[in-house]
Amino acid sequence: MPRISYVNGQYLRHDRAGVHIEDRGYQFSDAVYEVIATVSGRLVDETLHFDRLERSLTEIGMEMPFSRTHFKIKIAELLRLNRIANGALYIQVSRGVAKRDHKFPDGVRPAVVMTVRPMAPPARTLVEKGVAVITVPDIRWQRPDIKSVSLLPNILAKQQAVRQGVYEAWQVDADGMVTEGTSTNAWIVTGDRLVTHAPDHAILNGVTRLALLDMAAEEGLVLEERSFSADEARGADEAFLTSTTAFVMPIVKIDDAVIGDGKPGPRTRALLARYDGHLRGDA
Amino acid sequence: MPRISYVNGQYLRHDRAGVHIEDRGYQFSDAVYEVIATVSGRLVDETLHFDRLERSLTEIGMEMPFSRTHFKIKIAELLRLNRIANGALYIQVSRGVAKRDHKFPDGVRPAVVMTVRPMAPPARTLVEKGVAVITVPDIRWQRPDIKSVSLLPNILAKQQAVRQGVYEAWQVDADGMVTEGTSTNAWIVTGDRLVTHAPDHAILNGVTRLALLDMAAEEGLVLEERSFSADEARGADEAFLTSTTAFVMPIVKIDDAVIGDGKPGPRTRALLARYDGHLRGDA
Repeated sequence: MPRISYVNGQYLRHDRAGVHIEDRGYQFSDAVYEVIATVSGRLVDETLHFDRLERSLTEIGMEMPFSRTHFKIKIAELLRLNRIANGALYIQVSRGVAKRDHKFPDGVRPAVVMTVRPMAPPARTLVEKGVAVITVPDIRWQRPDIKSVSLLPNILAKQQAVRQGVYEAWQVDADGMVTEGTSTNAWIVTGDRLVTHAPDHAILNGVTRLALLDMAAEEGLVLEERSFSADEARGADEAFLTSTTAFVMPIVKIDDAVIGDGKPGPRTRALLARYDGHLRGDA
Repeated sequence: MPRISYVNGQYLRHDRAGVHIEDRGYQFSDAVYEVIATVSGRLVDETLHFDRLERSLTEIGMEMPFSRTHFKIKIAELLRLNRIANGALYIQVSRGVAKRDHKFPDGVRPAVVMTVRPMAPPARTLVEKGVAVITVPDIRWQRPDIKSVSLLPNILAKQQAVRQGVYEAWQVDADGMVTEGTSTNAWIVTGDRLVTHAPDHAILNGVTRLALLDMAAEEGLVLEERSFSADEARGADEAFLTSTTAFVMPIVKIDDAVIGDGKPGPRTRALLARYDGHLRGDA
């Protein structure tokens, strides 16, 4: 059975699924996206993802290409055609195809691409041992809160992490404050305080991040949405990162600093357990 | 005769020319590009453009997909197929097609797309009257010297200019200094001093910019490659912008400030005349 992807109303064999070379997503990164986990065919945190997609589109002067109901019908069909119940859904909406020109084109239809692939939870060995991260300068544009495909700085930073054999790079702004990872949000725990960057223009307000905010109080943690420095992070009791595909990943090393006793901390493990339940739909 | 574009070794009808949805140029803006003027089939400032293409590729960890000689053979064929002698050539090189993952993929071939279209010189009325620009905050990433397709901030700024009915937006950094336009370099003239931003990481070192540097001395101008503030620009004798497609465009208004006597200045007109000669190959 060939893999199938959705492109502008059509369900195509993935290996033949293309967009026009003058799609503005290709020439101008004039596009936004979402990655949504599916569990037993259910879209996890569906409302939060569609809310954010709509917000990203609004911020770049676009509207939703069609209703959420239509999205859900198309997504259900895509999952059915690929026989995938537990997977990762990728949605990209670009401004559409137009003769190359910086200014917004008139009367163009948005281009919509969706792919789905099976998604396994993060490897057990990673989660049990924890991962290492490095810190790198945050050289991105000033609106990472818009989930756009303008991701070149992110992949360059990620590649620095790969070259150093670590899981992720935490980006640090000009004031020495950690903003977020290249595709993950950054968290630290010290005592009973759970700290993560406030959801301003400097970070992408992760859906997994939002889910965790709700769990902090249940876990007896005092939430602080504020900036923290790389130094503070290196001295924290625990650290972890979150994303739709990484779930809640314990961090045991930041640059050369071992975090806590070098093993995933109890708060992090408890939050991961809660998040696993959230994914399964326990709430 | 249908328009023809080049995609990964094939010459395709432009309306059917596509790239894969998982081309990293589409999902990550993991691609760089060049726009080159062709005059009577000759590539204007060819060496400078290929030098810059190679530099952009190097900066994102890639190599030229094939030799300059091969590029030139392919370009000549593309111009022939489109029966275009005087036009604008667009070259885009992306890291290639791979399963979506931030880290660089292994063993992937770069994707190469080229299009060509007729290019008329900027409208005479614009050049004779001059244009207006606005200033906007420069919110781009910290490496605009890499000519990547990570252009979302640029098009959002350009659209602000369009909405205000002006030709271009000059981007201003946190220190109040003009960096450059959204797809053009920024220049001012005061007395016999010609001022433009130094070619550091904050601007794209335009090929038209480089051509003009050589002409400054011939025109009796003292060149100063340094930052200038929006205030200094508004008080300058003359102002203009340059790019491959805009040539040398006089600016007569910056925000609400009229520049000089509100008409294109003599230095600007002289430089444009020299640049026209350069395009025709007079040098």
